[in-house]
Amino acid sequence: MAERRLKFWGWGYDESSPDPEEARAWLKRLAARTGLSGALDLSPPKLTELDLRAPRLEVPDALSRIATGNAYERALHSYGKSYPDYIRAFGRDYRNPPDIVAYPEGEDDIRDLLDWADGIGAAVIPFGCGSSVVGGIEPMVGDAFTGTLTIDLRGMGQVLEVDETARAARIQAGALGPGLESQLRPHGLTLRHFPQSFEFSTLGGWIAPRSGGHFATLYTHIDDLVESVRVVTPAGALESRRLPGSGAGPSPDRLFIGSEGSLGIITEAWMRLQDRPTHRAGASILFEDFRAAAEAIRALSQSGLQPANCRLVDAEEVALAGASDGRFHVVLVGFESADHPQDARLARALALARDHGGVPEDPGESGATLAWREAFIRAPYLREVTIANGLMHDTFETAITWDRFHDFHADVMDATRKAIREATGREGHVTCRFTHCYPDGPAPYFTYHAQPTPGRELAQWREIKAAASEALMAGGGTITHHHAVGRDHMPWYRAQRPHLFGKALEGAKRSLDPKGILNPGVLLDPLT
Amino acid sequence: MAERRLKFWGWGYDESSPDPEEARAWLKRLAARTGLSGALDLSPPKLTELDLRAPRLEVPDALSRIATGNAYERALHSYGKSYPDYIRAFGRDYRNPPDIVAYPEGEDDIRDLLDWADGIGAAVIPFGCGSSVVGGIEPMVGDAFTGTLTIDLRGMGQVLEVDETARAARIQAGALGPGLESQLRPHGLTLRHFPQSFEFSTLGGWIAPRSGGHFATLYTHIDDLVESVRVVTPAGALESRRLPGSGAGPSPDRLFIGSEGSLGIITEAWMRLQDRPTHRAGASILFEDFRAAAEAIRALSQSGLQPANCRLVDAEEVALAGASDGRFHVVLVGFESADHPQDARLARALALARDHGGVPEDPGESGATLAWREAFIRAPYLREVTIANGLMHDTFETAITWDRFHDFHADVMDATRKAIREATGREGHVTCRFTHCYPDGPAPYFTYHAQPTPGRELAQWREIKAAASEALMAGGGTITHHHAVGRDHMPWYRAQRPHLFGKALEGAKRSLDPKGILNPGVLLDPLT
Repeated sequence: MAERRLKFWGWGYDESSPDPEEARAWLKRLAARTGLSGALDLSPPKLTELDLRAPRLEVPDALSRIATGNAYERALHSYGKSYPDYIRAFGRDYRNPPDIVAYPEGEDDIRDLLDWADGIGAAVIPFGCGSSVVGGIEPMVGDAFTGTLTIDLRGMGQVLEVDETARAARIQAGALGPGLESQLRPHGLTLRHFPQSFEFSTLGGWIAPRSGGHFATLYTHIDDLVESVRVVTPAGALESRRLPGSGAGPSPDRLFIGSEGSLGIITEAWMRLQDRPTHRAGASILFEDFRAAAEAIRALSQSGLQPANCRLVDAEEVALAGASDGRFHVVLVGFESADHPQDARLARALALARDHGGVPEDPGESGATLAWREAFIRAPYLREVTIANGLMHDTFETAITWDRFHDFHADVMDATRKAIREATGREGHVTCRFTHCYPDGPAPYFTYHAQPTPGRELAQWREIKAAASEALMAGGGTITHHHAVGRDHMPWYRAQRPHLFGKALEGAKRSLDPKGILNPGVLLDPLT
Repeated sequence: MAERRLKFWGWGYDESSPDPEEARAWLKRLAARTGLSGALDLSPPKLTELDLRAPRLEVPDALSRIATGNAYERALHSYGKSYPDYIRAFGRDYRNPPDIVAYPEGEDDIRDLLDWADGIGAAVIPFGCGSSVVGGIEPMVGDAFTGTLTIDLRGMGQVLEVDETARAARIQAGALGPGLESQLRPHGLTLRHFPQSFEFSTLGGWIAPRSGGHFATLYTHIDDLVESVRVVTPAGALESRRLPGSGAGPSPDRLFIGSEGSLGIITEAWMRLQDRPTHRAGASILFEDFRAAAEAIRALSQSGLQPANCRLVDAEEVALAGASDGRFHVVLVGFESADHPQDARLARALALARDHGGVPEDPGESGATLAWREAFIRAPYLREVTIANGLMHDTFETAITWDRFHDFHADVMDATRKAIREATGREGHVTCRFTHCYPDGPAPYFTYHAQPTPGRELAQWREIKAAASEALMAGGGTITHHHAVGRDHMPWYRAQRPHLFGKALEGAKRSLDPKGILNPGVLLDPLT
């Protein structure tokens, strides 16, 4: 597919692991801040070490151009990028790879693939670039299928049309972040959707699981950026009309946004774009008190100032990122515009922050901001170092209304610390930041490190995951704000989702995918 | 229900018709601007003149507290407020009233009513305050039912909880606009959703048909204001979780927002509120050229300035409103904030408008703005004067991406004028304004006046409606941006909606309303 080959077992391309010096520095800082240091030096798996079972499906001649039972492809499409995915990869545990991997070059190929799978009773896993951290693309589909076919969309990565007047583009679902932006750049436009996985995730992989972008307020959740979608289902294809707004029945787009491959394969979408920003103003603001910092973010979120960046990072997480000494919680605030200067907005934001006890670090872009950004970009790469070192590292995220936030934050932090202690027998390290801020509540994002017992990592991770998820549910949060449900979150998604909405979704699925071949086990129990 | 009784045949309360002086002045201006003057002086129907058939259903004792076969109630719930509704009312044509009207006082009552209707095979029409202009609440349900039960929610109009921290409130679906706002006012909060029907429409009547508020950009479509919904269906009740954002599967709320009573009865919702604005800045800007005015609106919509008001009214419509002499198209722009002054935003907006040839009428709130606002508020009342005079008056609305707007506008105006000419044998009068502006396109709203042949009004209206709707579809617009689908728009909604999305919606309905008793014929064909 690409000139460079993706690592089949981890983040990024082959040969793109952090160099030893960066790795050592990171582990040293991690140990200093958390007291945790792993004793292991796990080596990544080699393809020749894997004992992949023989494919249970045979590619028909008509599809051999685009489908393969090749070992590298099957290994690459076995897992996403979650902690348990890494553990199983380091353990050479590839017991359930897809039987066949296909790279369609167009919609006709997708129809042919679905027809084939539907005909032979195989399950189909739609795949973007495998950045799922929730088991969303793992071919764990139960026993009711003859085999599994993963459809990787990266052969469909073109920006097909650009409308500079309405500022929108028709883009194929397999476009990766950087390629998508580089095709838009000559038009002076940007989708401006920058999830942490940006380099290795696709447009379809953003729409299907309701991705959240880097920006904090306004147009950031992918939901708001979709103008229309085109979807291929086992029952046929459908396309919604390009519209800036509509009141004609429930939104067709919103049924597919968040459907995680269970209702159809998104093949392309018209996406709303923005002019590339030319005016910027930003600052880092230091707070001694976390609660005061959160209240400052609430004031900012409810002010109508609409900052592009509005991120609270707790003191421990700032320190772990190497962006400070851990004495202060940091609020990063930034404004952007392609039309007009943002200094007045920043000034008002700083005044609001000062009202809550915040001290601006610097009037312009500051050291903490830059250090944080660098850490944010490097984080997915450094995870493999952490895990190879024998430490557990995971994140989970949610959203909650402001009225419940303070208790919720305390409860989730406590529950996670307690679960780490009980599962691993040692104290762990838990931090929190806000990734997005809405007028009615923040999206808190939790990161934890722990030291699991070698050989018991998966069981201990599951205990911690369950406890943290229970705390999110009990406190009134969502099981996910932008990581999606996948297979890992299903127990709590079932609890969160109104039962009758689940029934309605099942009714919708029966109409589009009568045999239930699409991503079985995700969002819905297998159809019976 | 209320101390004052609603007119059963038209807008507002009994005795609230325009006084003769206002009526005469309006008809005089209408004649002067359009060349149209009706020769009739139709009198409103009296209840005693109606020949209502006997109810086909009998209220069981257990429901007699809340349900009635009373003639006034059946007449009141026969029609909405569309042109054909008025024509039939003036014609004393009440041949299809609901058999029973119920005023539930709580959710238990609604369950009991649904159980009863489901058991006896009656159709159920959820009703807010009857402002539908699309046949959304008319009990025209086909022959498969034993009768029709209209459930009027106005007995459930309380604000049940206010959360000042997250700025949200739990509000019963039957709350009318003014009552809802007066319950929020002591908290310094506002829903800030002001459709033209505000005085006589309800929260549930805004959510079910995806209402558009008065404001032009950002949080204005009711979709964005809903934090969670509670819905009673024949299969049971469901409630979504209060969340500022979520990525857990397709949004449950978005399935019910726009469901127009066909999937369940919305009983309450947590709604996102805003602080009451204290800073305002606005202006009226005059344009000689309509196209230039539209381009100015595009620039404003794409500037990130997010005006609260951003309305283009074409010259003829401004003149008809009595707000100018018809030489200029007017752009009304306004900014509001509860946090910070808006003068800089207004200054930038004026600069953008000047770049497109606009001339600000006045630096502050101007004559045109005030005159327009008054006309906007009085319009629903004056319609009855127009129609009683023998003239046809109707509106229709849509949304379209900017790239298609100019041709679209010309084609829709032409098609409507041509249809009026062909249907009525005379020239009509067609105007356009924008009610909402999105970065990717406007929501144009068309108003027309014509002189129909007495006795042939309905047939002529249908011809014009069909031609205008065909033009909306052919040009790529939506059949409705905020008036909803109802029964009148079904042919074009079927054409607009992806066929397979219709199938998915049908699958969802089968799960929630297996016998298909809820608002049959709206959004979905009767279940078979």
